[in-house]
Amino acid sequence: MENKGFTLWFTGLSGAGKSTLAQYLTPILKERGCKVEVMDGDEIRENLSKGLGFSKEDRDTNIRRIGYVANLLARNGCAAITAAISPYASVRDEIRKITQTQATFVEVFVFAPLECVEERDTKGLYKKARSGEIKNFTGISDPYEAPETPEVLVDTSKESIEESAQKIIDYLSSKGLLAS
Amino acid sequence: MENKGFTLWFTGLSGAGKSTLAQYLTPILKERGCKVEVMDGDEIRENLSKGLGFSKEDRDTNIRRIGYVANLLARNGCAAITAAISPYASVRDEIRKITQTQATFVEVFVFAPLECVEERDTKGLYKKARSGEIKNFTGISDPYEAPETPEVLVDTSKESIEESAQKIIDYLSSKGLLAS
Repeated sequence: MENKGFTLWFTGLSGAGKSTLAQYLTPILKERGCKVEVMDGDEIRENLSKGLGFSKEDRDTNIRRIGYVANLLARNGCAAITAAISPYASVRDEIRKITQTQATFVEVFVFAPLECVEERDTKGLYKKARSGEIKNFTGISDPYEAPETPEVLVDTSKESIEESAQKIIDYLSSKGLLAS
Repeated sequence: MENKGFTLWFTGLSGAGKSTLAQYLTPILKERGCKVEVMDGDEIRENLSKGLGFSKEDRDTNIRRIGYVANLLARNGCAAITAAISPYASVRDEIRKITQTQATFVEVFVFAPLECVEERDTKGLYKKARSGEIKNFTGISDPYEAPETPEVLVDTSKESIEESAQKIIDYLSSKGLLAS
């Protein structure tokens, strides 16, 4: 039986673990029979949104584009995983509504406290944001609107990656989104 | 058996019949077991390329985005049909090269002589282009580089839509891209 498509929408601060978790999940989902595409924030900016900045308007445009492509994939049976910060609740909800008419939308709040991601500072961006070298940085100089009712909440400051991934797999299984 | 994915890349002047042919083919391909997505030039500009104009650079960017999304779909087993003018040979060839590493790329030259599409003037655009109201209009004030070796050539000034569609179906069949 062919798997149903869905969008697995990760949202969270830079460094919270969205891309890491997406990469970790990919082979697991493939093993469960899914076709998987990961849409990473940086990759999408390169391929679909070059020229856009980080104002609210430009971020929303970028996120709408990711949502549009994810939906095309999801409604054709893919597991489309998005791993962009997507800080604004309104545009996430807008994409949820569009997706739900054609496939399943699963919002995953990839949480870690600001002090934790700032401590990690994987890409060295928080340091630059604090010094003002980078402007409009989510969590520092730009808002992050946490989801109020995400389908899955993971806390990467307390859980291992296996535990976080398992929560997501369990949710997908419970909704009949994994065939095997 | 699941169908293989492919990109069916239509190129041709505005009014040559790209979108019409794409719409006509969609139910036929679905009946043959394909998952089909049509990426129309206007729709993609709305969803992925708002803000881009019609300079060579902006057109190339728009076409690269269409190619990127079509490839995501094709490599996941979809028939991705694109119906943008895509006037420049170099960017079409660039997309062909990228696609061919992951799925099949089928270029369809949807031909009709300029005098024919100008006579049709379905959207009233040629009149505006001739009067100068629209600038950078392909075929009038902007170049169109015809493909030299397209996989399929259709001439919508001489063939019925059934004949043009059949040529495409025959090509796809001959390459084993239609399961049934």
